[in-house]
Parts: sequence; structure tokens; C-alpha cells
Amino acid sequence: MSAPYYAVIFTSLRTAGDQGYALAAERMLTLVQEQPGFLGVESARGEDGLGITVSYWSCEAAILAWKQHPEHSAIRERGRSTWYAHCHTRVCNVERDYAFQRQT
Amino acid sequence: MSAPYYAVIFTSLRTAGDQGYALAAERMLTLVQEQPGFLGVESARGEDGLGITVSYWSCEAAILAWKQHPEHSAIRERGRSTWYAHCHTRVCNVERDYAFQRQT
Repeated sequence: MSAPYYAVIFTSLRTAGDQGYALAAERMLTLVQEQPGFLGVESARGEDGLGITVSYWSCEAAILAWKQHPEHSAIRERGRSTWYAHCHTRVCNVERDYAFQRQT
Repeated sequence: MSAPYYAVIFTSLRTAGDQGYALAAERMLTLVQEQPGFLGVESARGEDGLGITVSYWSCEAAILAWKQHPEHSAIRERGRSTWYAHCHTRVCNVERDYAFQRQT
């Protein structure tokens, strides 16, 4: 990835219990990787229940297409009805990008 | 926060052991909140060791000033010498912002 490209920052706080979440998350991870313009994804959830997932995209059109994907849309509804106490989506243009890798 | 504003996405993989990390992270969290243009920060580290911290800023000048803060610069060097196997910093313009909050 070299800037400029796009990032979608998704932060969420889970409700209690799995309620089908783990299976759905795994399915979404498979599906997103098949989408045109998808560059990568990173995800972490801490012990306090706050999760941050950042997906990377080549352009805004690719983000919109993924948003409108029927299976993703259906899952998003379950997120709001069941899995998330709150969630926040931010669509960003990545302007600069610096990496550090330890020499081994 | 209402778009547009800036986000800095910092992803990292920790080396083994604390080596002063927790104390330094706590100090940086205190210090960043005193910086002009700072809007907020969210952080999560998963069991696999991948951490994602996203800080939010009013403008690019505020991000640059924080980058150049002497104490932050010194800590960043320790990150590279000691705490991180790899890390990645992305400076982003947040163009759109959607929130969902469960009604209780």
C-alpha cells in the first residue's frame, strides 16, 4: 500500500454473549477479501470490549460497493439489533504512511 | 467530532516483556490529552499482540506539533529500539463519520 488510498475505521463495543457474532465475523472476513479494491484489514479487541477494525481500500467506489453488498448489509443490521452497544464508522483518505520493521 | 477532521492510525506488534512500556504508554496518554487540537483517542490490543490506536485531531498542524513534541519524540525512539517488532503510522483525513448508539 502506498498513499493515497482509503481506510475505514470501525470501532465498536460488543453486547454480552456471542449470539452468532464469531461465525458472522469469520464469514465477513472471508467475504471482504474477495471484494474488488480491498487492500487489507487489521483488527484488535481489548479486554474492555472495545474493538477497532481498520480495512484498507483502493478507492471510495470500492468502499461503497462493499457497503451495498447484500450479505454485508444484512449482517450490518444484525450488528445494530444484536451485537453492538455502539459502533462508529469513519471513512478516511490516507494521506501519509510510515512503516517500521525490526531487523532480525 | 464532525467530519472533516484528522485521524492517525497507529498499528503495532509488541516485542516480548513489558520493558517499561506500560508506564510510558500511560504517560503518553496523559500528555496527548493536553495537546492543542487533540480530539480523542481509542485503543485496543488483542491476544495476538496486534495493537491499534487511533487518535483524532482537528488539523494537520496539530498532528505535526505532537510528532515534534520532545517527550513524544524520545518515547518514539524507545518504541523502535525496544517495544515494537513492527509499527505503522497512517495520517488520514476523515471524510465521513457515522455513529450508532443503542437505545437503552
